[in-house]
Amino acid sequence: MKPRANHNRSLLQHRVQIKTDTSAYPIIIGEGLLEACRDMLKSYPRLFLVTNDTLFDLYHEGFIEPLENEIPYLSHMAIPDGEKYKNIETLNTIYEQMSSQGLGRDGCVVALGGGVVGDMAGFAAATFMRGIDYVQIPTTLLAMVDSSIGGKTGINLSKGKNMVGSFHHPKTVFCDLSFLNTLPKREFFAGMMEVIKYGLILDADFYRFISENREKIAHRDRAVVTHLVYRSCRLKAQVVGRDEKEGGVRAILNFGHTVGHAIESYTNYRTYLHGEAVALGSLAVIRHLVAQKVLDNHVLEDLVGMLDFFGLPTSLPADVDADVILTHMGYDKKRASGVLKWITLDRAGSAVWGESVGMEAIRDMLRGLQKRG
Amino acid sequence: MKPRANHNRSLLQHRVQIKTDTSAYPIIIGEGLLEACRDMLKSYPRLFLVTNDTLFDLYHEGFIEPLENEIPYLSHMAIPDGEKYKNIETLNTIYEQMSSQGLGRDGCVVALGGGVVGDMAGFAAATFMRGIDYVQIPTTLLAMVDSSIGGKTGINLSKGKNMVGSFHHPKTVFCDLSFLNTLPKREFFAGMMEVIKYGLILDADFYRFISENREKIAHRDRAVVTHLVYRSCRLKAQVVGRDEKEGGVRAILNFGHTVGHAIESYTNYRTYLHGEAVALGSLAVIRHLVAQKVLDNHVLEDLVGMLDFFGLPTSLPADVDADVILTHMGYDKKRASGVLKWITLDRAGSAVWGESVGMEAIRDMLRGLQKRG
Repeated sequence: MKPRANHNRSLLQHRVQIKTDTSAYPIIIGEGLLEACRDMLKSYPRLFLVTNDTLFDLYHEGFIEPLENEIPYLSHMAIPDGEKYKNIETLNTIYEQMSSQGLGRDGCVVALGGGVVGDMAGFAAATFMRGIDYVQIPTTLLAMVDSSIGGKTGINLSKGKNMVGSFHHPKTVFCDLSFLNTLPKREFFAGMMEVIKYGLILDADFYRFISENREKIAHRDRAVVTHLVYRSCRLKAQVVGRDEKEGGVRAILNFGHTVGHAIESYTNYRTYLHGEAVALGSLAVIRHLVAQKVLDNHVLEDLVGMLDFFGLPTSLPADVDADVILTHMGYDKKRASGVLKWITLDRAGSAVWGESVGMEAIRDMLRGLQKRG
Repeated sequence: MKPRANHNRSLLQHRVQIKTDTSAYPIIIGEGLLEACRDMLKSYPRLFLVTNDTLFDLYHEGFIEPLENEIPYLSHMAIPDGEKYKNIETLNTIYEQMSSQGLGRDGCVVALGGGVVGDMAGFAAATFMRGIDYVQIPTTLLAMVDSSIGGKTGINLSKGKNMVGSFHHPKTVFCDLSFLNTLPKREFFAGMMEVIKYGLILDADFYRFISENREKIAHRDRAVVTHLVYRSCRLKAQVVGRDEKEGGVRAILNFGHTVGHAIESYTNYRTYLHGEAVALGSLAVIRHLVAQKVLDNHVLEDLVGMLDFFGLPTSLPADVDADVILTHMGYDKKRASGVLKWITLDRAGSAVWGESVGMEAIRDMLRGLQKRG
């Protein structure tokens, strides 16, 4: 029997406000947000809900149908499940459905899903009739603490992730924690990596809290998970509020992502979940900082312990080709002398943006991650 | 022998400044702007020029090659020529080329062409890496006076024109009047319709100027055409400056376009050029206003005379089905009682926005346009 989520309870709600130069909107965090959701969506003359096949099966009865029953002018579509469908072909099917459902400038898109659904439905909303409203209802931990917040929307091209996109903020983000009850363990733990990242780059106390509560987190203790989501959203809101379009400080949210993205790309997005690749990327940077004597060895040991506990990877296979991963970072022979700007730490809980790291150091980082063959 | 355009002369340049809430940029108007263009583009580390097959053949030798010779990091692509290619498939080929040419956040797209090229290349720039710079080099009269200015970019969906898009302003618009030397007569005259429209809705003196100089216009007299482009850009700049995102007054630029778009759609974009359909749409509205005794009959007679002179259509074939055109305006049986907001005139040179016109009146307008069978 599959686990049941109850979206119909009305419990304590937490609220985080996002405020940027161009928009302001709330993130509502709690269990059982169906009613709050319905109340907000009712004000639109036409709504279009986008989800994926897997989520449609899981949540049709408990969430989508109850919404549709009370809002007859809400229609839905389910896209195929998976990062490889985050492309222009799927986007086109979304546009054509929006158009044939008669969605107008005063309509609203509802993104029910993880990062792929949120990014694509958000981009469709950003560009349909030059921009209409949308609402995020993230169903994964990763989407709740990261991708649903901050207005980044987009799709992948054959040669790179999120190469096409827009900044377009949702009108509201509903983080209904009930969805986490049905989230597979591997995905929940991969989402934890972004939570750990917030601690590492911005908040040593929060990092300690995560470390001390790892057992409760693994059991998805309601109070602890609520705090994780709330605190992560607060931290991201602060950063995005200071730098909406990633001209500066927002870049620190990419900690571990330069190597992480290159590993995802190298493995064709098949081997690692995003959070797992970011775990490897974060470890690579911290290992480098320990070697440089910027960080104490215990920071590395603590992180490895935490990643092990959450089943996140701590090493790359011996047969991985570090030089090929480098090309996925934009280094090639023609640019052998190039340096990328990196996000590093000066201690756990404090990120530094804009460090230059040479190609040799990065190759060493990657080799350091490899299992001895 | 095909007519030659000389882009390499340095003559008097006119300048119109666009200033909106989110951007400010110049429109440079003159003959022989190759050099000015090159000077501006040189500052980018990488450039990507988009044009179409027909224009590539016409302007490769005289314009594209001289640019590439001095800017080695400029690459180009030619898309197929025609409105029917303004779709997501062509957009995808543009994205993939931009990506494989290594265009980065600091790159710039150069749109060399008419409305189709400008809208698509502009939208590609608006969304590639969440928005990079672009420059418009319009080659048609229509693009010079209308589509290259104001930041509207986009593509068509199977069910509607410009259904997907963004507001994204170019960094500069270069209106090199030399391109008009090679523009086919039918396209030049279709472009004249938007010029006539500016007169009709905003500037009675300008309308009279067009009417009095029709012979010189037909011969593309340099001084007169320069004034037409300059004055049209000034008028559009004023409107866009007051209302960037078409929340209000900018809507008056759509005069004649509700019926015009429906006629284009009804005829599958095969029978009429955009300006020709707008001629019919403008005539329909003015005929209605004369019947309503809002306008004197001589306004109608003047316009018909001018359209005739420029070879623009003044009637619809007798077998056209007015009811089907109505459905292309968004009217159908379910919405029979609906009214659309229209842009009308209270006199030549003064538009009124937001008039409600009932479906019956629109049906009468369309029937009034039809040749007696």
